Amino acid sequence: MRFFSDNAAPVCQPVLDAMIAANTLDTAYDGDARSRALDARFSELFGAEVRALWVPSGTSANCLALAALCPPHGAVVCHREAHIHNDEAGAPGFYTHGAKLLLADGPGAKLDVAAIEGVLAGIRDDVHQVQAHAISITNATEYGLTYTPEETAAIGALAKARGLGLHVDGARFANAVAHLGCAPADLTWKAGVDALSFGFVKNGGMSAEALIFFKPELADATLYRRKRAGLLLSKGRYLAAQIHAMLDDDLWLANGRAANAGAALLARAAGDRLVYPVEANEVFVRLTPDEAAGLRALGFDFYDWAPGEARLVISWNQSEAEIAPLADAIAAL
Amino acid sequence: MRFFSDNAAPVCQPVLDAMIAANTLDTAYDGDARSRALDARFSELFGAEVRALWVPSGTSANCLALAALCPPHGAVVCHREAHIHNDEAGAPGFYTHGAKLLLADGPGAKLDVAAIEGVLAGIRDDVHQVQAHAISITNATEYGLTYTPEETAAIGALAKARGLGLHVDGARFANAVAHLGCAPADLTWKAGVDALSFGFVKNGGMSAEALIFFKPELADATLYRRKRAGLLLSKGRYLAAQIHAMLDDDLWLANGRAANAGAALLARAAGDRLVYPVEANEVFVRLTPDEAAGLRALGFDFYDWAPGEARLVISWNQSEAEIAPLADAIAAL
Amino acid sequence: MRFFSDNAAPVCQPVLDAMIAANTLDTAYDGDARSRALDARFSELFGAEVRALWVPSGTSANCLALAALCPPHGAVVCHREAHIHNDEAGAPGFYTHGAKLLLADGPGAKLDVAAIEGVLAGIRDDVHQVQAHAISITNATEYGLTYTPEETAAIGALAKARGLGLHVDGARFANAVAHLGCAPADLTWKAGVDALSFGFVKNGGMSAEALIFFKPELADATLYRRKRAGLLLSKGRYLAAQIHAMLDDDLWLANGRAANAGAALLARAAGDRLVYPVEANEVFVRLTPDEAAGLRALGFDFYDWAPGEARLVISWNQSEAEIAPLADAIAAL
Amino acid sequence: MRFFSDNAAPVCQPVLDAMIAANTLDTAYDGDARSRALDARFSELFGAEVRALWVPSGTSANCLALAALCPPHGAVVCHREAHIHNDEAGAPGFYTHGAKLLLADGPGAKLDVAAIEGVLAGIRDDVHQVQAHAISITNATEYGLTYTPEETAAIGALAKARGLGLHVDGARFANAVAHLGCAPADLTWKAGVDALSFGFVKNGGMSAEALIFFKPELADATLYRRKRAGLLLSKGRYLAAQIHAMLDDDLWLANGRAANAGAALLARAAGDRLVYPVEANEVFVRLTPDEAAGLRALGFDFYDWAPGEARLVISWNQSEAEIAPLADAIAAL
Repeated sequence: MRFFSDNAAPVCQPVLDAMIAANTLDTAYDGDARSRALDARFSELFGAEVRALWVPSGTSANCLALAALCPPHGAVVCHREAHIHNDEAGAPGFYTHGAKLLLADGPGAKLDVAAIEGVLAGIRDDVHQVQAHAISITNATEYGLTYTPEETAAIGALAKARGLGLHVDGARFANAVAHLGCAPADLTWKAGVDALSFGFVKNGGMSAEALIFFKPELADATLYRRKRAGLLLSKGRYLAAQIHAMLDDDLWLANGRAANAGAALLARAAGDRLVYPVEANEVFVRLTPDEAAGLRALGFDFYDWAPGEARLVISWNQSEAEIAPLADAIAAL
Repeated sequence: MRFFSDNAAPVCQPVLDAMIAANTLDTAYDGDARSRALDARFSELFGAEVRALWVPSGTSANCLALAALCPPHGAVVCHREAHIHNDEAGAPGFYTHGAKLLLADGPGAKLDVAAIEGVLAGIRDDVHQVQAHAISITNATEYGLTYTPEETAAIGALAKARGLGLHVDGARFANAVAHLGCAPADLTWKAGVDALSFGFVKNGGMSAEALIFFKPELADATLYRRKRAGLLLSKGRYLAAQIHAMLDDDLWLANGRAANAGAALLARAAGDRLVYPVEANEVFVRLTPDEAAGLRALGFDFYDWAPGEARLVISWNQSEAEIAPLADAIAAL
Repeated sequence: MRFFSDNAAPVCQPVLDAMIAANTLDTAYDGDARSRALDARFSELFGAEVRALWVPSGTSANCLALAALCPPHGAVVCHREAHIHNDEAGAPGFYTHGAKLLLADGPGAKLDVAAIEGVLAGIRDDVHQVQAHAISITNATEYGLTYTPEETAAIGALAKARGLGLHVDGARFANAVAHLGCAPADLTWKAGVDALSFGFVKNGGMSAEALIFFKPELADATLYRRKRAGLLLSKGRYLAAQIHAMLDDDLWLANGRAANAGAALLARAAGDRLVYPVEANEVFVRLTPDEAAGLRALGFDFYDWAPGEARLVISWNQSEAEIAPLADAIAAL
Repeated sequence: MRFFSDNAAPVCQPVLDAMIAANTLDTAYDGDARSRALDARFSELFGAEVRALWVPSGTSANCLALAALCPPHGAVVCHREAHIHNDEAGAPGFYTHGAKLLLADGPGAKLDVAAIEGVLAGIRDDVHQVQAHAISITNATEYGLTYTPEETAAIGALAKARGLGLHVDGARFANAVAHLGCAPADLTWKAGVDALSFGFVKNGGMSAEALIFFKPELADATLYRRKRAGLLLSKGRYLAAQIHAMLDDDLWLANGRAANAGAALLARAAGDRLVYPVEANEVFVRLTPDEAAGLRALGFDFYDWAPGEARLVISWNQSEAEIAPLADAIAAL
């Protein structure tokens, strides 16, 4: 029983079925009907005119967004534990041609206005220092915390006041929406967000993420950057098909809810052992080395995240029956 | 009946089956068994120790190869009609951080030693001019011509003598091997090739190409570049599965032969209308505008490539029954 | 007696004097009064509001201009023999982060509207091809030809119609203005030029070129790029001083005229041997190997430019007395 | 009486004289005898075979060094207050094509082995994280502290053990050598340093810094990078002349000693007010706002560096007579 990563989970059946259904002669690249329908599909979901591009990875979604919001000589403010800083091999530096990440702090990889303002205040307004052009937050965060619509809007207001772009890394956007019970619009354009990496791969998809621009004009140059980065797959219809399947009947939301529910089960069992409130599908639990070893001896696999701290991630397809034994084992520690 | 592009063709069933078979919990990125087996699999195919990385597109395979062979301040010699120059949106400039492409000429997008030497001779050996660091050829070329083992080896010898890397864009490598009837080794490491973009997507795959390094040490930094470019898909096992399916029972070669056979059928019908010898799955035919219109009126779709010249591309899945009517129609012109 | 290059010439006395006069405690970088006065100084010269930045080399002036006019995923149309393509070690690729140069032809490294339109017509309007964003011409050209105000305006009109920026490499702008007898404005903003590399180093300066923006807003990001490229010298006042000295009493124009006059002397002597009309300070002369050797035996040094073709460059400080012997020797061939 | 910055100081007379002496017809770029003599000149100074390139700024020296030591996908460990991180507008990101700076801490902008090891220990050895390829230290530091030969050698040993390059930003290398009384070799190649930015501009020069490679082969590609960055000035002899003048009779060292002596004068007066030991030409003094205002009312100018903390920088040309009044005023606070 593995609780390592939602990347390890299989692909859900409707996504596979949609790919199989797409397996006919069709127009290459993004000229097929499925790809061309994405703008409309996401515009409906968000209740606003948006532009939507498929890309094959979350890193590429994030970095195309940053490249659209920040010039090579600029900087992006993000959390010190943001995925774009720690786990993307410097991809933001590649896509932006060397822009900087300016690091802010906050518990659970979550930023607030004060933390961002603190970073901005440290930049002298002259050509010797790299000026901020954008902010990037992750919702849900790398530690499974969510930004509420109000919290997002506060950061959005700051971004607007300072003339900065605002990007949301939504690798677990589904989990955030599921937890908050709000509309996708509330966490994005209504809160001042310019670009969203809408993740599907951790949530039942195979190889398709959606990059959403709420300022449609930002998409224009991104179309060129996507091709220039080798991301415009020639048989793009199989990516578009995945996304449509995830949007059909709000499968993305159902999957997010399912994973969150599993995490909640563990959270209740963990009680005071929780490092952070559980607001998505990740559970960080304080465990002694002996306790961790004990759980592993029972067949449960997970990452040691920090000394005395384990990370448990629930995937869309893990049932209560599969999770309950781990919950019981934790409760019994 | 569409003869536009092999990118438009569907995915072949064994590839789909392999993806479905891979649909279980597994290690993320390229840590799964299928991904880890690629080095051995291709080493066997090529009869030499090679390193093999999956990537999701031909453009990314080509450009990671170029980045491994050419520093930012260098240049790559290629044909004026090479895909990397004309159809990749400047991706070589992105991946190499601004290296130049130096353009050589030759009929049918095919280079020979003299053409390459002519370009090299034009470069002054001083810091004011960009020095060549690599050569890139396409086999089969953008016009469906092949480089024989001897022709490749002659370019390989030139590369070695000049201290240049040698890359082969093998988007249609299967078609080239099928036509020449040689071993894959004869067109690559035995001929001095350092890196090969081994294409599967045009040949029955969905979203996986293999980047092969015949100098294994070139792969080391490429692993970082692949991740940094957002190309290390988190569910990489579905890409590895495609490649294994293509290699099983030499499906790649069977598909290449099938497409070539279809093209040969058209070639025989076209006779003197052929612009180039047909050595792969592309057929360039001289047609007047009226003749082209006539074929289209019969339901045949294809690109006008140049004034008075049409491109017909045969895909792995187009049967003789499907092609014969076009052959007949051309013969009847 | 050397006729190799105007880069080999010494610095003229007023420039040295101005540098010595600047040798006091002063504000660093470009905060000193001399640097801050450049905008006004050039605005007066051009009769329009411009922004002017010193930089230490012509290559850096050219490439900062290109970076201001062309995004990384774009292209710049220039002549196949343009300095930015042939003699700047790929600097445009470095400064633009990999944008392409698209090469056009024309005698004497000079472009016309038809040549540029020919290049533009060859670009498909899709994301697979790199789209043009700017045009760069050199006035006077690398072969000493000038663009008249009318010729420049025709290219400016094309640029405007196509939404392209227009840059002039004016390494020998002084020679062009001196030859044409027009106002600097006629060759720049009145003709649709957006940015000019105004050269002083070949014309009596030491290490200061001026980058002029006729769309002032283009300067904003360039200030950051200049620093980011290590070009914002800490003792910038010595560069500003050079430029002021060159502008005082139109020294730049006097020096340009002097060099042109020397070239005219050679041109008259060369007669039918001229490869191009002599419109600046460069003279290209047809010489057999024996003739070239004969001139060298007399003590005249120069470059063999092409088989049977020599380049003679006159510097601002070469007097008629120094040039006349060469003119006589050529006439006597 | 200004104590802002050593960049504000004038150029010393021997440097100016050398530039005037160089003002004759000569070979362009770095083909002149003065430029060609730099390798030998610095090899003599360092007692080892080195390669030496002039560049027009400290930022460009630093960043060419980093580009030689770190690939685009790598990282450089430096201090959080390093000039390359805080005051070069992101130039390291430009020159390295997006490599990261990994920030370590230590009082007075000085690193030790433990601080660097702490940063290195935080990097997972996988392709998701950017791996360190080099270390950069500043000697003397941005706060005027020096690394002794032993301290440098300890970092050099760490670099060697980890396979990392080692760069020294020596904008105030003269001040460090003057303070430590050691040989230049002791602070560089004998201590494992690969590249040194040898600063002259803050120390009496005008526009020439020397980039020294102790692994000569590192210079080869750097020659191309220098030109590609627009840093290969066409009249390079005037830069080489400055450096020769600074090396003649150890003028660089005399100037460094003079500035250090002035700083020592202030240090003695400041006593307990010193924030850091004074080991070079910078003095950081604790001052209340009233005290700072009082000093300014007496005509002394300087930067407020942090709340309650002023920075006083002494230049090579400030005499004891000029500095004594400030020393007295501080002592009298």
